Amino acid sequence: MTAAHFNKEKGSQLKLFTPGPVHVPERVLRELAKPNDTHRSKPYSEMHQMATEGLQKLLYTKNECLIFTSSATGIMEACVRNLVKEDEKGLFFSIGAFGDRWYEIGETNGKNSKKEGVEWGKPITPEFAQEALNKDKYAVAFIQANETSTGVYNPIEKLAPIIKDSGALLCVDATSSMAGVKIEVDKLDIDVCLASVQKCFAVPPGLAVCSISDAAVEKAKQVKNRGLYFDFIDLYKRHVAKHQTPTTPPIPQIRGLTAQLDYILNIEGLEKRFERHEKLGKQTREWAKNIDLEMFPENGYESNTVSTIKNSLDLDIPKMVSMLLEESYRIVNGYGDLVNKTFRIGHMGEIQIKDLEEMLKVLGDIIKTLK
Amino acid sequence: MTAAHFNKEKGSQLKLFTPGPVHVPERVLRELAKPNDTHRSKPYSEMHQMATEGLQKLLYTKNECLIFTSSATGIMEACVRNLVKEDEKGLFFSIGAFGDRWYEIGETNGKNSKKEGVEWGKPITPEFAQEALNKDKYAVAFIQANETSTGVYNPIEKLAPIIKDSGALLCVDATSSMAGVKIEVDKLDIDVCLASVQKCFAVPPGLAVCSISDAAVEKAKQVKNRGLYFDFIDLYKRHVAKHQTPTTPPIPQIRGLTAQLDYILNIEGLEKRFERHEKLGKQTREWAKNIDLEMFPENGYESNTVSTIKNSLDLDIPKMVSMLLEESYRIVNGYGDLVNKTFRIGHMGEIQIKDLEEMLKVLGDIIKTLK
Repeated sequence: MTAAHFNKEKGSQLKLFTPGPVHVPERVLRELAKPNDTHRSKPYSEMHQMATEGLQKLLYTKNECLIFTSSATGIMEACVRNLVKEDEKGLFFSIGAFGDRWYEIGETNGKNSKKEGVEWGKPITPEFAQEALNKDKYAVAFIQANETSTGVYNPIEKLAPIIKDSGALLCVDATSSMAGVKIEVDKLDIDVCLASVQKCFAVPPGLAVCSISDAAVEKAKQVKNRGLYFDFIDLYKRHVAKHQTPTTPPIPQIRGLTAQLDYILNIEGLEKRFERHEKLGKQTREWAKNIDLEMFPENGYESNTVSTIKNSLDLDIPKMVSMLLEESYRIVNGYGDLVNKTFRIGHMGEIQIKDLEEMLKVLGDIIKTLK
Repeated sequence: MTAAHFNKEKGSQLKLFTPGPVHVPERVLRELAKPNDTHRSKPYSEMHQMATEGLQKLLYTKNECLIFTSSATGIMEACVRNLVKEDEKGLFFSIGAFGDRWYEIGETNGKNSKKEGVEWGKPITPEFAQEALNKDKYAVAFIQANETSTGVYNPIEKLAPIIKDSGALLCVDATSSMAGVKIEVDKLDIDVCLASVQKCFAVPPGLAVCSISDAAVEKAKQVKNRGLYFDFIDLYKRHVAKHQTPTTPPIPQIRGLTAQLDYILNIEGLEKRFERHEKLGKQTREWAKNIDLEMFPENGYESNTVSTIKNSLDLDIPKMVSMLLEESYRIVNGYGDLVNKTFRIGHMGEIQIKDLEEMLKVLGDIIKTLK
């Protein structure tokens, strides 16, 4: 259905193959244009409940899920402010720009912060994690599941038990993987698993969500100077008591999310969705290999939602992006230090195999003229 | 045009006469359903520039205007974190629930905070402000223009010069007045003038905006522990350099805001818009007087965007609200401690005189049956 929808629009609008904001199906866009009731009304509370219960199913968790009027960075800041006490230390694992950002959030919030990073393109390995944890006593560990800059997927299933064994709380930034890659929150005992909705959910930006464990809620109660806007306790209380938020939420995006969760859980199905993203990743990597382009991530750790591809053919990346734009497709240059050294293709949300194939064919033809 | 539009929908959807989120015209809702490009694209930057330049005209200011992915409360927290140093004091003038909230933000962010409040229903007078400022040395003063809980409008034009004379920076929460009531930022020398868009702008919630003075930007540079998400410097730099935001913004609401600013500035016109809100306020107060309902605010300080009306007839407010809902109109009960002691009618955004008259007639009939 989405493939048909997607193709229907060909020529009439830009098709985003970006690492977010991503292409949003018309059926979701239409949800945003529906008239709103207030955020203290029964219809709102019902929608809020549907959205957060849907998130619980998506994340295989009994933990409550919270709604934030912010980007994912807002919840990253919330984790730092709510979970690290003055006399405690936070450990920030970094494999790229967003790991570095989380560490910067720790620093700029005056928290005792330690960064343990690896060369960009590499993942955090279990050995590296264990060694880092052995160095000191950390109250909370922060880590990306999928690093949107390098296109590396951390082996989070292996890392979570090691981190939790150390006694630290575990916060996972699943921004560009939640709803595209399976993350079993309860099985991995993740305390906060967060994301924004403009990535694998295929909802327009302006809303971020997370699951939160009882342990995280209890910990927050002991932390001073949490502020008001991102206070986990306030958000949690209002959510549990009334299925509401303390301040006015982005109602249009929540309606979009509710519709998408229904689609994901009841129409496409979780397993099929995760399989589709696996195929999208694999197909992109095969395409790259066939035209002699290398992947930036270390072999075996490539993301299935965003492919960061090395500019091993020494292409004029801005020109390539611009030529593809003329064909109504958008991909993006590398992030930060990786600009022109890499480029990125986002293949998440509602992008179907056929959509990807069509775009890659056009991009392949452009690359031939640029080589 | 909007009146016709509004009436056309009669019976087909709920009509909000709320203090926000308010009724949104279909033409604005449609903006939210348009496909998005990314927040690093030229089309986004152009839209961002249009929106922020429109805000400058609306606020009669040369100060830069910033875009936040948050509710207005987020910018209230940003003001506290960015402008008050550790060894300084903030003065929070409070005339109701949102003044109390700002003070709470000061406290929960560990800032040295002093609240100077008056009995709910009363405004801050110039004498009261002067006396409060004489008591101590304050680095920043925080005050509501319009207090959404009590329906009181502070005499901000008289208060601003007194506050600025004390040497304090001035932050004004204009949440339920910006785009409905004239606020001349440069004339009053307001350092931060903030609002969310789901009130007088008549845009769905999920976006907040502010003007920021050079003095506020310079001050922020000296303040430690500003965090990352609400860092004025980061937001300001990216805005000035690229007409962008540091993190992903709520693109649909920004598109709605851009359309509304065009409508406000170029179709309705600023003066006409402010006059219309004056008339809406006056008309509501006359209606209340005619059926022996008293206004909650002190005479002369009633808001023209939200009327808080005393329950002087001892009405069953929840029943009244519910009966009106059956007629497809929503008004709301009193806020916090004022529940059942007052009720509130919002008359801001795109509500026309004729719309208000129709609703008030229906409400008047309901009140007759309840007396």
